[in-house]
Amino acid sequence: MNARRNLRPVDTDTTRLADDLRALWAKRDIEAMASEAARNVSPGNATDWGMTTNIQSVLEPIVLGGGIPAPETLPRQALKEAMDRALDTEERDDGPLRYGGAYGFEPLRDLLAERYTRDRGFTVTADWFMLSNGSAGAIDQVCATFIQPGDVVISEAPTFSGTTRTFRGHQAQIATVSMDDDGMRVDQLEPLIQSLLRQGKKIKFIYTISNFHNPMGVTMSLDRRAELLRVAAKYGIFVLDDDAYGELYFEGVQHPPALSALSQCEGVISVGTFSKIVATGLRVGWIHATPNVIEQLVRMRFEMGNSPLLHRMLFEFSKDGALDAHIKKVRAVYQRKADLIAAALREFCEPYVTFRKPTGGFFLWVDLLGGLNGGEVQQQAIAEGLVAAAGYGFFPDRVDTGNHIRLAYSWVPEGELREAARRLAIACAKVAEREALPKR
Amino acid sequence: MNARRNLRPVDTDTTRLADDLRALWAKRDIEAMASEAARNVSPGNATDWGMTTNIQSVLEPIVLGGGIPAPETLPRQALKEAMDRALDTEERDDGPLRYGGAYGFEPLRDLLAERYTRDRGFTVTADWFMLSNGSAGAIDQVCATFIQPGDVVISEAPTFSGTTRTFRGHQAQIATVSMDDDGMRVDQLEPLIQSLLRQGKKIKFIYTISNFHNPMGVTMSLDRRAELLRVAAKYGIFVLDDDAYGELYFEGVQHPPALSALSQCEGVISVGTFSKIVATGLRVGWIHATPNVIEQLVRMRFEMGNSPLLHRMLFEFSKDGALDAHIKKVRAVYQRKADLIAAALREFCEPYVTFRKPTGGFFLWVDLLGGLNGGEVQQQAIAEGLVAAAGYGFFPDRVDTGNHIRLAYSWVPEGELREAARRLAIACAKVAEREALPKR
Repeated sequence: MNARRNLRPVDTDTTRLADDLRALWAKRDIEAMASEAARNVSPGNATDWGMTTNIQSVLEPIVLGGGIPAPETLPRQALKEAMDRALDTEERDDGPLRYGGAYGFEPLRDLLAERYTRDRGFTVTADWFMLSNGSAGAIDQVCATFIQPGDVVISEAPTFSGTTRTFRGHQAQIATVSMDDDGMRVDQLEPLIQSLLRQGKKIKFIYTISNFHNPMGVTMSLDRRAELLRVAAKYGIFVLDDDAYGELYFEGVQHPPALSALSQCEGVISVGTFSKIVATGLRVGWIHATPNVIEQLVRMRFEMGNSPLLHRMLFEFSKDGALDAHIKKVRAVYQRKADLIAAALREFCEPYVTFRKPTGGFFLWVDLLGGLNGGEVQQQAIAEGLVAAAGYGFFPDRVDTGNHIRLAYSWVPEGELREAARRLAIACAKVAEREALPKR
Repeated sequence: MNARRNLRPVDTDTTRLADDLRALWAKRDIEAMASEAARNVSPGNATDWGMTTNIQSVLEPIVLGGGIPAPETLPRQALKEAMDRALDTEERDDGPLRYGGAYGFEPLRDLLAERYTRDRGFTVTADWFMLSNGSAGAIDQVCATFIQPGDVVISEAPTFSGTTRTFRGHQAQIATVSMDDDGMRVDQLEPLIQSLLRQGKKIKFIYTISNFHNPMGVTMSLDRRAELLRVAAKYGIFVLDDDAYGELYFEGVQHPPALSALSQCEGVISVGTFSKIVATGLRVGWIHATPNVIEQLVRMRFEMGNSPLLHRMLFEFSKDGALDAHIKKVRAVYQRKADLIAAALREFCEPYVTFRKPTGGFFLWVDLLGGLNGGEVQQQAIAEGLVAAAGYGFFPDRVDTGNHIRLAYSWVPEGELREAARRLAIACAKVAEREALPKR
């Protein structure tokens, strides 16, 4: 049988060979053979990975764990039909199933360029975009291209923990600036930069999640955007804008222009993704930058590009305004969920928490009051059947002096949000009570 | 209109900001900001990228450029149906459209494990596999995990040029051993290793394309396989087996066991892919190694994993023996094409070429006789309407003293193979004639 072609009668010599090899390799330390980068980076956890959770719970838990689109918004039928159309080329035209190249499927990049030109007020073309394995893959690519081990990245603290892993994996040092309700504390930038330069450091990026921040949910103000761009350009440091959530704004609020709009991409590398506006499992995102930056990024691409089949499916799904219609629909879903969780927190949790109501995106950042510890509240919440991320995981130094819980309200059914707040209140009450007891 | 939310009336200040930034950034040299790796690596060409070609030709050319499955073998209908099934989960089960994790979809890894257990004579499970962006993505991942800048990789010469780019992109030094009809000249290994160790080098991999080599089409003999494994284990160097073509063997020939079978994966990292057995555009491949090696690889994964949608589609496409049936069918297609091109070369090109008829895979390696230069024959062939890769591109040092042309016969329609050989003969004749003329 052809399927068993490798199964020649295995003679004793061959078996002995494997045993000999095993004995030789048993003496080797595989981890010690790894690159410095690999030895310095953790495998990551569910939060880094944007998963809902990998925590085992006794109760059927309510999961506010990861920044993931609501299952009820997933356009399955439309995606099936888009895939059918994507595969429907002439017999010898194997484009949808053949290597798609380093930049990604051009009509999809054209479509992005049209939308950006329309929404951001200056003209861009396909050359301003490179498709990637989601925005996480985009950031990985940007790091591979620009980070030399020991280079510094300036990051907001808190920030998305997955990106912290990426920076560490490229052996970047991470310096941090604080956050408040208006986003990055841009006033801290210049002193930090000067101090780093005095130490002889090369600073490659200022990393921001400017819109509907993960984990804080806040948006950088217009004044701060302009100041950030000016400072970065003065020192020749790229602004790396993780704009995964920018399209998921809520109605009734004035939102500032994107960093890429204000700068016309001068000194700005902006990454975007279909993950949050359609589905994380597509693994299609993009890098948006001036063509001379895109050109550099392509050099460090070694995986033969991403799947043109997915690119074409997304193009078929998105064209003729269908993506816009979809995004408009999902915005309303998240706005309603944000309203529900905020109302429920006010109803149940007031003595223990304060928070800012998001104006877009997937996340609500809870400040714990009265010295409640984020890690302890998280553990107690799990016992009560509520899974959410503790704040410390989002600080590159793993210290959250403010003590926070991140509630990702996007994925969970509307009907569970009130109960989630009730369980959080119970968890807070139990931790507060335990803390108040005299220590034995 | 919500789509234009970022288009606040752009005031003069904002426009001036972009202009100011442009002036500041005009002074910066973007390329000089790139990492050392990026500065040392070329963007690659169509051959590195496994594309058919990017050469513009006057005639409608016959393209024997890239190692790409024949369009007539692509299972479009079956893939459409598989995608429908993959998307057909319960309403709240968003698995096919949600982050799939670092390892990749477990049932597909189970399926691989079952096939490997059956074909390679020892038991493996899903833990022995990590899914990747094709085998090129797999090699990139392996390099990121194990290569420290300056480490040495020992490679066959010639070898696949895309992998040479990947090694360079990770700042590995490449040392080479020669090839002959039985594959890697394993007798050159130990002297080379000892010489490198004397220079204080760390050697991380011995890279081989053991089955139906790209570009040479040859297969490593059993004796050499055993010797390679012994030498590598003696010095604690991984064998990195690029086994993209191993399943595409032709009938009627005895094929030696895979390196992973002989070693039971001790010291062997084997990469495989759906690219060559189904379609390159899927971008799904895998790393097969012992679980402790896989564990290390997962640490350096920062792009949130590949698409679970594609993984599930491939699982649905492959299950219940359907993948085996597909592979059996495509093997016959390539065997027939190899027969046709070999016969046509004998008919038209005998005075100019000699070659070995492949026993599997996509490639036939032509030795040019009488001092004909590979690059010159390639250029003349393009003028005659035949696109194929010159040999020098496959040597890490870019020197092909033997002078060769690689004919990738997989993609082109059967009916064009005879004409391809005829055009190659004309190209050879014209170059030979030109060479014979007295130089003016």
